[in-house]
Amino acid sequence: MRKIHVIGIGAGDPDQLTLQAVKAFGDTDVFFILGKGEEKADLVALRRGMLDAHRPDGAYRVVEARDPERDRKAGGADYSPAVDDWRGRRADIYERLIADELGPDQTGAFLVWGDPALYDSTIGILEEVLARGSVDFGYAVVPGISSVSALAARHRTGLNRVARPVQITTGRRLSEEGFPDGVDDVVVILDARLAFRRYADRDDVEIYWGAYIGTPDEILVSGPLAEAAPRIERLRAEARARKGWIMDTYLLRRRTDG
Amino acid sequence: MRKIHVIGIGAGDPDQLTLQAVKAFGDTDVFFILGKGEEKADLVALRRGMLDAHRPDGAYRVVEARDPERDRKAGGADYSPAVDDWRGRRADIYERLIADELGPDQTGAFLVWGDPALYDSTIGILEEVLARGSVDFGYAVVPGISSVSALAARHRTGLNRVARPVQITTGRRLSEEGFPDGVDDVVVILDARLAFRRYADRDDVEIYWGAYIGTPDEILVSGPLAEAAPRIERLRAEARARKGWIMDTYLLRRRTDG
Repeated sequence: MRKIHVIGIGAGDPDQLTLQAVKAFGDTDVFFILGKGEEKADLVALRRGMLDAHRPDGAYRVVEARDPERDRKAGGADYSPAVDDWRGRRADIYERLIADELGPDQTGAFLVWGDPALYDSTIGILEEVLARGSVDFGYAVVPGISSVSALAARHRTGLNRVARPVQITTGRRLSEEGFPDGVDDVVVILDARLAFRRYADRDDVEIYWGAYIGTPDEILVSGPLAEAAPRIERLRAEARARKGWIMDTYLLRRRTDG
Repeated sequence: MRKIHVIGIGAGDPDQLTLQAVKAFGDTDVFFILGKGEEKADLVALRRGMLDAHRPDGAYRVVEARDPERDRKAGGADYSPAVDDWRGRRADIYERLIADELGPDQTGAFLVWGDPALYDSTIGILEEVLARGSVDFGYAVVPGISSVSALAARHRTGLNRVARPVQITTGRRLSEEGFPDGVDDVVVILDARLAFRRYADRDDVEIYWGAYIGTPDEILVSGPLAEAAPRIERLRAEARARKGWIMDTYLLRRRTDG
């Protein structure tokens, strides 16, 4: 039977690969690399570099495909219909890749930035392909260092405070719903709208921000949000213009008494 | 100047070490291993196994110390005074270890289960030691695979649903405050009270539970909470009696329409 590895490859630093990921690399016949337009050049090169480093034998194939664009203009607070359609189109592609590019006893791998469990759809798409029933395979997941973990490590801070919760959410939710009740540590990923600006006039919020974490382009900013927000906005715009894309993440920390 | 690595070593599977962690191992003169009473035998052995595997040269020292016990009976919803005292006593120990066991140009390492950013106090304690000013050192954090990531990977599920938040919290908070508003995916760690039982009569909650994740003793249970709860309770009690300690984590997922 066909076998698939869903491999978390870390947030950008090739040394964030786990030994388990490296072993899964070694056990793979076909690597599927899905690019997303402008990100393609840098990120595909990073993944290719990992293959060069950990599969010096070269006894594998790489199949590149284009991830369909999501219609980001559609939908309101919950843009499920657009997402469903996008997932369906991705499932079409994954189904075809597995059926056409993988021999009946071969092993394929999808390389996922960060951790496949956090804001990634690969597992959901593979489940959808299996549910369709036209191609059969087994699969396993190799956890990876998420951009959230990498951010905290670079800033040398915890995500939570003692015995307190931490919430991971999207820029959309933070900007529409604000700080969640009872939570003072919020990690925001997928934020094209700079939702942190909503809190930039508060004096009790700190930010730990990072872009391209773990890569040579890494930028880190931390401090009281009121001071850091304009700086982050400027650095982010400059970096995005220079590189054509940006991946950033941040932790907002509301000061509590005691 | 003295240097310290705070190294996340994963949730129990030695292959969850990252290449960055292995490199930090290679750059360490003194490994500090802090045990906690009954956990000691198994967990200290796991860490020793990692050193044997990745430092075959043997050119390092291991210094074992005993972590002070926390007074778990103290305090209510927010047990800060007891925690502060406990941290102070830990800081005393860390300060002494760094000052006495590390030469002025040597590098030490603290090996942290999971990810140092998630419900671990090593970073906070090192900051406290630095703030005291009696011993100077630089330190860096190597992110690790958390038990949360490892749990999700073993269950082959995401932590969040599309564009939705996920909250990581403690058993105490879940049992006192219930499901947080606006959040349907809650990861619970540090739960000695089996807080999930509060929801065991609900028919819209699923659980993904795991103990000793990534080790030969691993136990996984998933499914509708009403069915899984008694089974988890029994397996957990048996395992705890057999091994003398347990480390478990779970994800509660509330069904949403659509």
